[in-house]
Amino acid sequence: MRIVALDVRDIRFPTSVSLDGSDAMHTSPDYSCAYVTIETDSAAGLAGCGLSFTNGRGTEVVAAAIRAFEPFVVGLTLEDITADMRGFWRSLASEDQLRWLGPEKGVIHLATAAIVNAVWDLWAKAEGKPLFRLLADLEPQQLVDAIDFRYIDDALSEKEALDLLTRMRSGRTERLDQLERQGGYPAYTTSAGWLGYSEDKIVRLAREAAEAGFTHMKMKVGLDVEADARRAALIREAIGPEGTLMMDANQVWGVEEAVTAMRVLRRFDPWWIEEPTSPDDVLGHARIRREIRPIRVATGEHIQNRVVFKQLMQADAMDVCQIDACRLGGVNEVLAVLLLAAKFNIPVCPHAGGVGLCEYVQHLSIFDYVAVSGTTENRIVEWVDHLHEHFLHPAVVANGRYMLPTAPGYSIEMLPSSIERFEFPGGSAWGASRPKVIQ
Amino acid sequence: MRIVALDVRDIRFPTSVSLDGSDAMHTSPDYSCAYVTIETDSAAGLAGCGLSFTNGRGTEVVAAAIRAFEPFVVGLTLEDITADMRGFWRSLASEDQLRWLGPEKGVIHLATAAIVNAVWDLWAKAEGKPLFRLLADLEPQQLVDAIDFRYIDDALSEKEALDLLTRMRSGRTERLDQLERQGGYPAYTTSAGWLGYSEDKIVRLAREAAEAGFTHMKMKVGLDVEADARRAALIREAIGPEGTLMMDANQVWGVEEAVTAMRVLRRFDPWWIEEPTSPDDVLGHARIRREIRPIRVATGEHIQNRVVFKQLMQADAMDVCQIDACRLGGVNEVLAVLLLAAKFNIPVCPHAGGVGLCEYVQHLSIFDYVAVSGTTENRIVEWVDHLHEHFLHPAVVANGRYMLPTAPGYSIEMLPSSIERFEFPGGSAWGASRPKVIQ
Repeated sequence: MRIVALDVRDIRFPTSVSLDGSDAMHTSPDYSCAYVTIETDSAAGLAGCGLSFTNGRGTEVVAAAIRAFEPFVVGLTLEDITADMRGFWRSLASEDQLRWLGPEKGVIHLATAAIVNAVWDLWAKAEGKPLFRLLADLEPQQLVDAIDFRYIDDALSEKEALDLLTRMRSGRTERLDQLERQGGYPAYTTSAGWLGYSEDKIVRLAREAAEAGFTHMKMKVGLDVEADARRAALIREAIGPEGTLMMDANQVWGVEEAVTAMRVLRRFDPWWIEEPTSPDDVLGHARIRREIRPIRVATGEHIQNRVVFKQLMQADAMDVCQIDACRLGGVNEVLAVLLLAAKFNIPVCPHAGGVGLCEYVQHLSIFDYVAVSGTTENRIVEWVDHLHEHFLHPAVVANGRYMLPTAPGYSIEMLPSSIERFEFPGGSAWGASRPKVIQ
Repeated sequence: MRIVALDVRDIRFPTSVSLDGSDAMHTSPDYSCAYVTIETDSAAGLAGCGLSFTNGRGTEVVAAAIRAFEPFVVGLTLEDITADMRGFWRSLASEDQLRWLGPEKGVIHLATAAIVNAVWDLWAKAEGKPLFRLLADLEPQQLVDAIDFRYIDDALSEKEALDLLTRMRSGRTERLDQLERQGGYPAYTTSAGWLGYSEDKIVRLAREAAEAGFTHMKMKVGLDVEADARRAALIREAIGPEGTLMMDANQVWGVEEAVTAMRVLRRFDPWWIEEPTSPDDVLGHARIRREIRPIRVATGEHIQNRVVFKQLMQADAMDVCQIDACRLGGVNEVLAVLLLAAKFNIPVCPHAGGVGLCEYVQHLSIFDYVAVSGTTENRIVEWVDHLHEHFLHPAVVANGRYMLPTAPGYSIEMLPSSIERFEFPGGSAWGASRPKVIQ
């Protein structure tokens, strides 16, 4: 099966109108994505889909980066790629000229992720399996062969990774059965706590979430500690002392500010503080963690690659590893970080929300449970109930759990009607009747 | 003076033909840049110029990112900007939607740098001064007010920065006079040591460089340690035991590989090893540094922002701070790193070469000497003698020293004829007669 074309679309949803997704740093987001379709010459018309989540403006930049990789993808067969997944990944992530723009970070890495994820989607569809099952069925050696150990082998060798995966082979079927019986993988909700919502709306949504079966809830903080405390008190009251409350500062604080703020907010018993400072600051996270114990430190949605995750673990700087399916360079690099987390005994609780992130990460956490960590203890996947209606096989959460996906692929294929309507700037949602959202 | 337009060009030089600039990671570079012109309504037709250096493919991605910032620049007056340089910088580096694509790293930060540098070029031209002189003439408070201390104030407070700059006010004139008398700022050359050059060519170029007055020379390493050792022996023989030899691995090694390789190469007495591993690996650099003492560890051309530089200093991971004028987010962020380096007592030896980097960094090192560090001890600026003929006011190196620039601005304005000839893909250098360089 040969890849004959790579199609890229700039898709944007005008979420800034209702301030869904608003936080201390991203006060007015338009949830968006650069969306890739890898077309093949297969008789069945199989195509692989992938996307990288963006925040509105600049989606066209990621789209341009994806197009820059086209000559390194089109013309390959799926068999060429799957026979040397590591080599394929490195041919993108370390492309001799394009790597100058990163390397392995930011726009160029978001582009890599969209393409790499589309390839995995294609592979899973060709095998007729949901992605988590394709991954769980691969031999340990095949999984290891998909990972680029460059820059992480001082913390995790190929042999350690292989041994860990081999050890976890036993019990796989039982764990999968158990997950099905329990109704899926545990989820928490962020939908109540956006910073742009009124206090009334927050209380109503928090109550509704608790009634819908969510035991864990996350709120945004970081604009003004008094306002944060007022909102935290309202949510804590709504969910009761037994509910689990997480807080998310979205990088707004410096290191010392984070410590000061969390000394005020600790009285609401937060289970974790997420992104207390710059995602680039490994040593800063380590210091914050030491100073605010026992509040746990979570980060990851902006951690640019496996090298920074490695250091956060080496430096005892993180309690919760929040991988992002397209901030990291796609499935291959996610595998590396899942294995690092297992070695360092750090729970992985993926970042989701946005557009398509819930669809993606359900596969990653199920695979992590089945074949890598072997436990769901202290592990929970973010759920944000927005924009799922645009996907052919949307993620489904019921009773506070992600149900196991059943359709072949990575669940990321969008409906043609949604693509048409929300393509920027030509789609009808962005037509002349709607002002362009630029402040 | 109001900014009325922002023009962006994709300029590429086919350097891969001669393998100028080739190293272990960038085996076939086409030195390129995204080039910005900020046009104003000034009667004199003043325009600010800036560029971000790229490596060929993907320059169009940086150009797209620069265009994404246009709405936040066009319409402002120079006076709006200079009255609040910190606010202007943050309005780009932390733009609410665009920051998702970084933040403050990779493509989006290269784009920020090109624009920010063009603004400084415009300001210096409006004042009729070379950039280094504009900077040296600003009040300490004005310099501090240009810096975003977010994420670095745990290592360097505004007050410390202000005190340092105030202390260094005395002796400024004397230091500048001394630099003029000495014939300029010390330079070293990399032109002899590119990895793609034959051994004969390397020996000839090393001898020529020594004859031209260079006492310090850098070679590329990292493909194969035996070949590296053979080339190092040739260069060492050509420059003699009194010559200073630096080595540059361009990120090709893992942490343990770097230690192993340098144990072999130490017998050629390298003054520093540059980019021994991933630029993202602060802890890895710290470990390499501990294990290969007394060889010094240098890095910076790929250090994405002030947050990572801060940590390299906090972690005792670097001996030589190699700022890049457009990898960092332009002059504002360079100021932050110069001050951090001064506080941590680490010499700044800027990365140069590429296209326009020599033109840029001469200003930064002169300013560093005059107003920040007050010394040139262990400080030396890279010089690569390529592509200077495309600039209106090219950097000039004589007797191993950068002569002080005299033209107003940041020395980065390109000749219209060069822009026309090398614009990609339409310029005559890239016309139908020349195959597009994609392997």
